[in-house]
Amino acid sequence: MRSGLFTVSTNSAAEFVDITDNARQAVKTAGIEEGILFLFNPHTTAGLTINEGCDPSVRLDLIGLFRQLISSTYPCRHAEGNSPAHALASLTGSTVTVFIAKGELRLGMWQHIFFCEYDGPKSRKVFWKVLQG
Amino acid sequence: MRSGLFTVSTNSAAEFVDITDNARQAVKTAGIEEGILFLFNPHTTAGLTINEGCDPSVRLDLIGLFRQLISSTYPCRHAEGNSPAHALASLTGSTVTVFIAKGELRLGMWQHIFFCEYDGPKSRKVFWKVLQG
Amino acid sequence: MRSGLFTVSTNSAAEFVDITDNARQAVKTAGIEEGILFLFNPHTTAGLTINEGCDPSVRLDLIGLFRQLISSTYPCRHAEGNSPAHALASLTGSTVTVFIAKGELRLGMWQHIFFCEYDGPKSRKVFWKVLQG
Repeated sequence: MRSGLFTVSTNSAAEFVDITDNARQAVKTAGIEEGILFLFNPHTTAGLTINEGCDPSVRLDLIGLFRQLISSTYPCRHAEGNSPAHALASLTGSTVTVFIAKGELRLGMWQHIFFCEYDGPKSRKVFWKVLQG
Repeated sequence: MRSGLFTVSTNSAAEFVDITDNARQAVKTAGIEEGILFLFNPHTTAGLTINEGCDPSVRLDLIGLFRQLISSTYPCRHAEGNSPAHALASLTGSTVTVFIAKGELRLGMWQHIFFCEYDGPKSRKVFWKVLQG
Repeated sequence: MRSGLFTVSTNSAAEFVDITDNARQAVKTAGIEEGILFLFNPHTTAGLTINEGCDPSVRLDLIGLFRQLISSTYPCRHAEGNSPAHALASLTGSTVTVFIAKGELRLGMWQHIFFCEYDGPKSRKVFWKVLQG
């Protein structure tokens, strides 16, 4: 099976959940030695990113700095009131791409993969697919 | 034919154009059941993103919030005067990646694909390519 | 050989290094006529982007505008003090995807590929992989 999905439960309004282990499991499930893992976030108020995973304070700083990015005075029209979460979703991006070598994710030493929740808490999904090559 | 291009006409200085139907047509043209669609924007003052497509006010809020991101007082050097558009291009990204399953784009329920014009109005192109797998 | 890496030396705290020629060399090394080149940045305080490469003032403006994005007053917790660089890494993204046609990168007329250093000077690496299709 070279594609699938996994679920992510978020517990706060904004939260970066480490999904590196889910990504590793996807690669094992695919059983491919050389190729690329693609992760896709099907939600419009969340994103996917790769960043430092060793010091948990980095992801807290990212959430804090990202929230500061978005104007708190701009007169948003979307009635649901979560336009800042939609904006952060597009700034973060909906896809993560990681190479696979010898059956392992080829991440840098400090890199972990994160699901970025901007409108939680919610139950979320991440699609994955592996291409060989 | 597993790659091609389509054109996008923009009518304002900043505008998000829904290109989901163009992407669906590309998948049909490719005639592939399982794989990945890649879209690529060859312009430097525009981007591609996936976000909510049901309420049109979301994309208007995104444009408004993105414009607020860029400092209006920073002394830009680029003589053409459109450095903010170049900055938004890089923040948005030049590629969109969407999985294909059973011959259909595997988007989330609210997700549409947008061409993000930041320096219009202009006639633009989007390249596409489908990989099987 | 359809994957590899190249090194990038940065000389400033923040700097966009043009790596278009490295990407072209990767495509030559891969020896593929039709496909996609993926570049991956394994560092957490740097990114990859595509933007205007003809006027060098554009990349200087991008660095200036990106630095203005990040709050200078937010009380970051990460002891290393480089959380703004981590934030810009995620906003820029860790991957660049470019189509290959007739053995050449299919970039737009003004597009160059940049390694975005946000915490230099440092010696950096970029991984590459080419998929045929």
